[in-house]
Amino acid sequence: MRVKGGLRVSSGTGFKVYSKNAKLYFGKKNYIRKNCSIIVGESGMLKIGDRFFMNNCSSINCLSNIEIGEDCLFGEGVKLYDHNYDYRSKELVPLNKRGHVKGNIIIGNNCWLGSNTIILMNVQVGNNVIIGANNIIYKDIPDDTVVLAKQYPVLRSILR
Amino acid sequence: MRVKGGLRVSSGTGFKVYSKNAKLYFGKKNYIRKNCSIIVGESGMLKIGDRFFMNNCSSINCLSNIEIGEDCLFGEGVKLYDHNYDYRSKELVPLNKRGHVKGNIIIGNNCWLGSNTIILMNVQVGNNVIIGANNIIYKDIPDDTVVLAKQYPVLRSILR
Amino acid sequence: MRVKGGLRVSSGTGFKVYSKNAKLYFGKKNYIRKNCSIIVGESGMLKIGDRFFMNNCSSINCLSNIEIGEDCLFGEGVKLYDHNYDYRSKELVPLNKRGHVKGNIIIGNNCWLGSNTIILMNVQVGNNVIIGANNIIYKDIPDDTVVLAKQYPVLRSILR
Repeated sequence: MRVKGGLRVSSGTGFKVYSKNAKLYFGKKNYIRKNCSIIVGESGMLKIGDRFFMNNCSSINCLSNIEIGEDCLFGEGVKLYDHNYDYRSKELVPLNKRGHVKGNIIIGNNCWLGSNTIILMNVQVGNNVIIGANNIIYKDIPDDTVVLAKQYPVLRSILR
Repeated sequence: MRVKGGLRVSSGTGFKVYSKNAKLYFGKKNYIRKNCSIIVGESGMLKIGDRFFMNNCSSINCLSNIEIGEDCLFGEGVKLYDHNYDYRSKELVPLNKRGHVKGNIIIGNNCWLGSNTIILMNVQVGNNVIIGANNIIYKDIPDDTVVLAKQYPVLRSILR
Repeated sequence: MRVKGGLRVSSGTGFKVYSKNAKLYFGKKNYIRKNCSIIVGESGMLKIGDRFFMNNCSSINCLSNIEIGEDCLFGEGVKLYDHNYDYRSKELVPLNKRGHVKGNIIIGNNCWLGSNTIILMNVQVGNNVIIGANNIIYKDIPDDTVVLAKQYPVLRSILR
């Protein structure tokens, strides 16, 4: 784990680096709020740029490779997974015995991931991207993009 | 910070009141569970009525003005934000340098916000409103309303 | 509370068993990560099978009856509720005075509930079910099923 300088972490947040081969780099002036979780597995590599802000209850789960650029902002409950249980395999063994499929996640500069954004493996997010709250992302997002839920919830009157 | 009486708070929950000018009022018999976060910024004002219940991992983020009536119930992971990064401005500076746009959130009496409800700035929620889980709300909701997601997820068979 | 053996629990996680009549059974080799919450009310019964894994910030809220089979995996922020505020009743008393309606939740073997999955009362989930992240489930799911959100968010370009 290498920290350029100015890493600030609030209570309830934990880091887990599983082996000597795992690599975790923090840029300058990073701030991680409460109850977050950062995991870097066996041979994982997680690089985070300068001025990164991660709000409460967010997590980064890196078994392979995750890179986050400069000036990125995570809302509350944001979750990144660069791996998946191998649920597509047709083996008849339980998921927890199948191991993981792994990929990467690359996030550009100046991105804002709204609360409860989930990003799955093999996603590349460009620069200047804003992702609205509660979205799950499994496709690439080009530079200069806003991402929003397609449907707004419906309102029904309560009859009394 | 003024508490009328009977504020009960579980472990992992924190309050942050940023200045002397910030105001935080709690009614009677409020109960806030674990790992919640309540923030009142510089000149923010947050008023919460009697018998408020806030379940685990919820947050109220008040930089301007939030009011919550009597007998309101928050599920787990509910989040209120009365401000936004100024992402619509066309300035070419990073979001974290642009400051916030601020508004208010007003919630009536006897409202139940389901788990993972997110309410954004300039939303007024009437009395007796029920919001189903996982919805993000950015428009007003009239009295006596149930709010539900429009789409139900799809089921696909796993072929073996 | 009865534990077959090998229950591992991380920091910030809490159990609440409301009475002597409430029953909580854990199978072998269960692992519950950080900041989770397990509640078993008055006369509730919660049974969890072997090799259960529950990731950070998840919760099980059992006032009546919840059963989870063998080899089940919960992502982060998964929430189970076997009860509901009685919001359909037309009484003119606040929700918090109406008490709960209760049901059950039955989950089979080898199920994976993605992050932020919410399961409501009276839902039966079969064996070998995979639920994608951010979905709320209030209908039964048959064996060997993948459950996914119907709509993908929309992308809009930011004009500069």
